[in-house]
Amino acid sequence: MEAKFQELKTRLLEVNDISSAAGLLHWDQSTYMPPGGAAARGRQMATLSRLSHEKFTDPAIGKLLDALEPYEKSLPYDSDAASLIRVTRRKYERAIKIPAAFTAEVANHSAESFQVWTEARPANDFARVRPYLEKTLDYSRQAANFFPGYDHIADPLIEASEYGMKATEVSRIFAELRAELVPIVAAITSQEPADDSCLHQYFPEEKQLEFGLEVAKQFGYDMNRGRQDKTHHPFMTKFSLGDVRITTRTKENFLGDALFSTLHETGHALYEQGIRMDFEGTPLARGTSSGVHESQSRLWENLVGRSRGFWYHYYPKLQSVFPEQLGAVDRDTFNRAINKVECSLIRTNADEVTYNLHVMLRFDLELALLEGKLEIRDLRNAWRERFEADFGIVPPDDKDGVLQDVHWYYSLIGGGFQGYTLGNILASQFYVSAFKAHPEIPAEIKREGKFSTLHNWLKENLYQHGSKYTAPEIVERATGSPLSIKPYIAYLKLKYGYFYDLDDDGTQQWEDMVKAWPGQSAS
Amino acid sequence: MEAKFQELKTRLLEVNDISSAAGLLHWDQSTYMPPGGAAARGRQMATLSRLSHEKFTDPAIGKLLDALEPYEKSLPYDSDAASLIRVTRRKYERAIKIPAAFTAEVANHSAESFQVWTEARPANDFARVRPYLEKTLDYSRQAANFFPGYDHIADPLIEASEYGMKATEVSRIFAELRAELVPIVAAITSQEPADDSCLHQYFPEEKQLEFGLEVAKQFGYDMNRGRQDKTHHPFMTKFSLGDVRITTRTKENFLGDALFSTLHETGHALYEQGIRMDFEGTPLARGTSSGVHESQSRLWENLVGRSRGFWYHYYPKLQSVFPEQLGAVDRDTFNRAINKVECSLIRTNADEVTYNLHVMLRFDLELALLEGKLEIRDLRNAWRERFEADFGIVPPDDKDGVLQDVHWYYSLIGGGFQGYTLGNILASQFYVSAFKAHPEIPAEIKREGKFSTLHNWLKENLYQHGSKYTAPEIVERATGSPLSIKPYIAYLKLKYGYFYDLDDDGTQQWEDMVKAWPGQSAS
Repeated sequence: MEAKFQELKTRLLEVNDISSAAGLLHWDQSTYMPPGGAAARGRQMATLSRLSHEKFTDPAIGKLLDALEPYEKSLPYDSDAASLIRVTRRKYERAIKIPAAFTAEVANHSAESFQVWTEARPANDFARVRPYLEKTLDYSRQAANFFPGYDHIADPLIEASEYGMKATEVSRIFAELRAELVPIVAAITSQEPADDSCLHQYFPEEKQLEFGLEVAKQFGYDMNRGRQDKTHHPFMTKFSLGDVRITTRTKENFLGDALFSTLHETGHALYEQGIRMDFEGTPLARGTSSGVHESQSRLWENLVGRSRGFWYHYYPKLQSVFPEQLGAVDRDTFNRAINKVECSLIRTNADEVTYNLHVMLRFDLELALLEGKLEIRDLRNAWRERFEADFGIVPPDDKDGVLQDVHWYYSLIGGGFQGYTLGNILASQFYVSAFKAHPEIPAEIKREGKFSTLHNWLKENLYQHGSKYTAPEIVERATGSPLSIKPYIAYLKLKYGYFYDLDDDGTQQWEDMVKAWPGQSAS
Repeated sequence: MEAKFQELKTRLLEVNDISSAAGLLHWDQSTYMPPGGAAARGRQMATLSRLSHEKFTDPAIGKLLDALEPYEKSLPYDSDAASLIRVTRRKYERAIKIPAAFTAEVANHSAESFQVWTEARPANDFARVRPYLEKTLDYSRQAANFFPGYDHIADPLIEASEYGMKATEVSRIFAELRAELVPIVAAITSQEPADDSCLHQYFPEEKQLEFGLEVAKQFGYDMNRGRQDKTHHPFMTKFSLGDVRITTRTKENFLGDALFSTLHETGHALYEQGIRMDFEGTPLARGTSSGVHESQSRLWENLVGRSRGFWYHYYPKLQSVFPEQLGAVDRDTFNRAINKVECSLIRTNADEVTYNLHVMLRFDLELALLEGKLEIRDLRNAWRERFEADFGIVPPDDKDGVLQDVHWYYSLIGGGFQGYTLGNILASQFYVSAFKAHPEIPAEIKREGKFSTLHNWLKENLYQHGSKYTAPEIVERATGSPLSIKPYIAYLKLKYGYFYDLDDDGTQQWEDMVKAWPGQSAS
């Protein structure tokens, strides 16, 4: 049995090595590859993806998993060996259901569709992408139908990145959140918008990068196992637990971009760097779901990086880096600027309050498309109507409307968006649990710029486990509660009750929530 | 038949993609990888190398090659299709003779041996590496013996990088060269050494890199398909014909290092960038042998980059980049400095005259070891005796003696060194053929810094063909002569006859050689 388990691990290591190399091909394409390398690079990535899929879906792996079942059952559920077998089986059973030929066909279609989109978006030409989107929707339904027996056609697509989560559950959570969010958004946006002109000045790139990376290191990003490079779109990528990289971009006329994208990607990187080293090369050695991953990028970006406590310590440092630009800007003005809430057109630029409305809009349209209640030919109008209803703005064009996000034009429709909002919700849930265990966290950050208590709690309760537990399992284990919007709503009211005139300032609701929240203070 | 040929190409493309990814893993390890990534990276490279070997030695490829034999024979020898089949068969037949288990064993041994060497060299401790070297020699003999029927045991090892070349032929060429070189070295080193103090000043890194890269571009290095990064040891690497990269290093207290290593690697890169784009992804898409490859790095580094004509044009530019350091140094002094000849301890720092003696020393010791005429236990003394005989210097220690080169401590013994000197010889041979066709080349370089006539001749006659022809074939095709030391000796005498007092200044010998050399001037 030991030999079979070892053979499984050896095979998984090979799959891991091929995927890691594919990841490096992608990283290099985004950072340093000369333009002439593009054609061959696309092919090389496709070859390695195919190989890693072939190796992972090798029937020998299925046989090993079958043979190891009695062994797995003889072990405790949360033993490392049982978890490795369980998680591998789950991924294997999913992988073998999707024919390689289908994956290749979709990849080809996606490449074409993406190419057309890059031209159609600046030309504001939804009609050009329509036939591609229709095919994409068709592929999306086919992909779901490789998993018959679902409750909702979107379930198999959601499960790809959020195992244990279903469409109806997401819809239920989103409806609950929406009911709370809409009045907050309405209250804030009826008031004078914050003045963020202090962020729109000239900030030299090098100093921006240096400051952001310095904060990342202070958060706990281990540069011995990481690095930062510049790319068009920021991302985090991992080639091994010893090599977890982030990328960022800068806008020299806007301070908010590089800084917060660095802190966001650092959150992702802290999660991956925190995984137990002995999981290296196995399917356990990665964050457990999109939503949980996003919770960590959001936690470090927003709950820490956009908090008043953080800037109590760091704003003087930022001022000393940019004395001409910020010397005369007081801390409160700066805090209001980086937390400005407004109804805007573009999801990726949205603030942490309105962001979720963007996600819900897309999620609901995706469900309607998959269910057949909405046709692609009506998508443009459906978008515009829903956008006006949610944001009170009619998108002036399709470029910044239905054409704005790459997702539908590069991958399947369904399952691509919910993680962003689940992440926002879970960020607060993890944070409040850490805070309940260590109420000194905010003061440590404010007085000393010390993040290790928070970071250690997250490592101990979340990061180290990688994919050992599913998202629902780890949320329950770490926080003593299933996913709940309560901490998030209480956090938003407390935070924005300070900046804006809300019904109340949120202090009482936050305190009541914390008091009722599971867990005992350790201090 | 067309279908089988297509299948062969598809399989070769897969092998190529895996190897290219392995190459990128290596490039990244040398340039940007954080230290924590090292352990996994070694394993990832090993996995990809093994996979690419497995895919290339798949019996299906052997069957395709057999099936394609009548097709190949029906085509002209130098048709692309026949060449692709022929070159693939040659490489396939070599690859299948070496068991994968043996390759893995040697790789493990090499990694261990390398590790020990990195500690033993600074400690000047030959005894520590001895047992490893003994095993290496044993592996080297085993490797040769996978190819029974050789004339000399070193032949199969030499053929790995220099197909068509044999040990006795190398020995014959080296003996001939040696007879000519020794008197030149003796004559030069009996004279006052050149003053190269102008190179040993402080030259800021950034300006060095910028100047070197500017010259590389002028040579014709296409930055749309290339880039330069910094590494500990400079190298050239290729991920596709659209992505051919070089690396360099700088010493801020020595101008010669970055500049000439950049020009050297640019020569390698020009060769690879010049290969016909329709060879992409096939075994034809790479330089044909180590010796021919080295001829191009040497040609651009030495015959162009260290020529008086080159600096006639470029020295004022260099002076304007480094006015404080070189403003008061005249061009002749600079030319003498960069062409200083001296007997020195380290091969990689040696000038272009004495360099070959270092190579011959190693080559002869390798043959003696493989033949069993020399034991590893006597290698240290054999080195010292030979070094004293050739250079008139007793190496003060083993660190800069028998322990200096990584080759024996990281790969097999045999076949690793001759390419350097064959490259020196061939550099002059290709150059004189280009010169014979276009006598305006030196004047173009001198007056205008124009390299395109030379570059185009090399592309047309050498680069474009990749591995289509063997080294002996392409040398004969491009120069109308088999490998000959005549151009090289004439070049050395002409060049160093200017700087040093030799029997004659070499002008007549050069002119006679050119006159007798095959080919008709086109101008």
